[in-house]
Amino acid sequence: MRDLAGGTQAVYGFNRSTSGARAAAKEGYDVSDDLVATLQRAEADGAMIVIAVPMHAVANVLDNIIEHAPTCGITDVVSVKKPVYDLIRERGLETRYVGGHPMAGTEKSGWSASQEGLFHRAAWVITYDYALEKEQAGEPVPAEWIDLFSDVCRMAVGVKAEAVPASVRKHDEAVGRISHLPHVIAEALSIVGDEGGTLSQSLAAGSFKDATRVAGTAPELVRAMCETNAAALVYSLDQMIELLTKARNDLDSDSPNIAELVDAGHRAHTRMEARSGARRESVSPVKISSRPVMRLHPGGHNWVRQLVQAESLGGRIEVF
Amino acid sequence: MRDLAGGTQAVYGFNRSTSGARAAAKEGYDVSDDLVATLQRAEADGAMIVIAVPMHAVANVLDNIIEHAPTCGITDVVSVKKPVYDLIRERGLETRYVGGHPMAGTEKSGWSASQEGLFHRAAWVITYDYALEKEQAGEPVPAEWIDLFSDVCRMAVGVKAEAVPASVRKHDEAVGRISHLPHVIAEALSIVGDEGGTLSQSLAAGSFKDATRVAGTAPELVRAMCETNAAALVYSLDQMIELLTKARNDLDSDSPNIAELVDAGHRAHTRMEARSGARRESVSPVKISSRPVMRLHPGGHNWVRQLVQAESLGGRIEVF
Repeated sequence: MRDLAGGTQAVYGFNRSTSGARAAAKEGYDVSDDLVATLQRAEADGAMIVIAVPMHAVANVLDNIIEHAPTCGITDVVSVKKPVYDLIRERGLETRYVGGHPMAGTEKSGWSASQEGLFHRAAWVITYDYALEKEQAGEPVPAEWIDLFSDVCRMAVGVKAEAVPASVRKHDEAVGRISHLPHVIAEALSIVGDEGGTLSQSLAAGSFKDATRVAGTAPELVRAMCETNAAALVYSLDQMIELLTKARNDLDSDSPNIAELVDAGHRAHTRMEARSGARRESVSPVKISSRPVMRLHPGGHNWVRQLVQAESLGGRIEVF
Repeated sequence: MRDLAGGTQAVYGFNRSTSGARAAAKEGYDVSDDLVATLQRAEADGAMIVIAVPMHAVANVLDNIIEHAPTCGITDVVSVKKPVYDLIRERGLETRYVGGHPMAGTEKSGWSASQEGLFHRAAWVITYDYALEKEQAGEPVPAEWIDLFSDVCRMAVGVKAEAVPASVRKHDEAVGRISHLPHVIAEALSIVGDEGGTLSQSLAAGSFKDATRVAGTAPELVRAMCETNAAALVYSLDQMIELLTKARNDLDSDSPNIAELVDAGHRAHTRMEARSGARRESVSPVKISSRPVMRLHPGGHNWVRQLVQAESLGGRIEVF
């Protein structure tokens, strides 16, 4: 909301927390703690609705949207996409929904923890399963959905993020590895460090603090994302456990040797750094994204295939 | 060296890398690439020698010190203490050696990666096994060793670090948990993320980047510290693998539930944050260390017992 408010579109919102809504209003943002009134206003304006609540609260928000904003387009920023899409399908809302997930955040929650510029150069995943299903069925994608897809892309770019298309399944598999797995690891590593007692607590420095930062996230949020993406997370946890068990056995020897893990890990880190977007701390005045860019016209010839191609490259799209 | 150079003592050094030595000299630091000449100068000055090389290079440095600086006091900053102390003992250098380990660093190496202020508020572990052994044997601790211990404490405080006493064994156990384990995890997590291919690489953001940052460390340095602290690392890896396996099984169910891990992890993280020193990003103008402080006079009544007590609290000491 902070980043969108500077644009040409009116931006307003609802916060279930009265104190959160008041704090935002005090800073001049148009935020209410009345859900029904906010949805009725959105319906009157033909607004696009951005759902930014934990997974367990999505169903209730959708039911309120059906009742009070029955024609608005809907997107969301929930960190798993299949459970959201299941709720959308159950309610027959596919033509009004384009999923989203900005890959940016901190371990803190609530209005007071929000900050401008959080999305700068971050990937903002935008799902396109509905278009793919239509194409595969040989049916046209409704103009309403195409417009919504374009609006969501423009919103992402409007907050300086990079729009990266992905199917629900591919998104959930990827974030299982690169977001939910690091959260589970941060929790476990915090426990192992803490069990070392006061000396370990006193000596913990950069490597430990960085690796465990996200264990400061509210437990219910961590559970919401991990438990609703369990299959993908189990798969990546199994890989992780296998690598750690191998390392453990390679260390438990008369001549401990973890060259295999460390060499492969360093190479993987180098590749990830090169491919995961410009580094925040880069000193270069010209920030060039490392994500390949594809310009496309939503609804144009072959556009769904272009989305599939961009997804396979982890590329960003610019719509025109 | 950058931080010490501003003090009242002359500071000079040796760098095996000629280009590194030249780069430091260009910035006005007194650095040579001639080890023998540097050691002879140290001997003539009665200097204290700080060994800051990877573990595999320590033996050769010690042998050169025996030959060219036969009376200088010795400390080091190697991240494992038992292998260093074994080399010290083999050479009968116990009375001239006090081990050290500043808990600060980055994933980068070499002079060009050095920075002022790196040690600010960091714990600088200082080992005291020799004094403990003497005390337990009912023998006096030699004045030479007590003076060296005081000098090492003053050096640590001189670069704004906090001197934390620890025995070799307790140090190695603690850093196995809070430093070497995060390194192994960073390597493994980098591999799992990278195996997700270009989409995962593109989507990786804060939680992944922070958790894998130290996988950017030179592989030989990671191996040196992990492989020479294998026993402690195996112990903490076993704890980690057990927690991750439990989480994996709790997720692989019809109603995935990792409340136990996440709640315990969040509590552990809160305790670690509270006890591991003032946060770098704290906005408070008055930085107050969270480490308890103990003032002691090296060689004074009960001073070795005070060290044991400070260690058990993860506390810092101030010598007078």
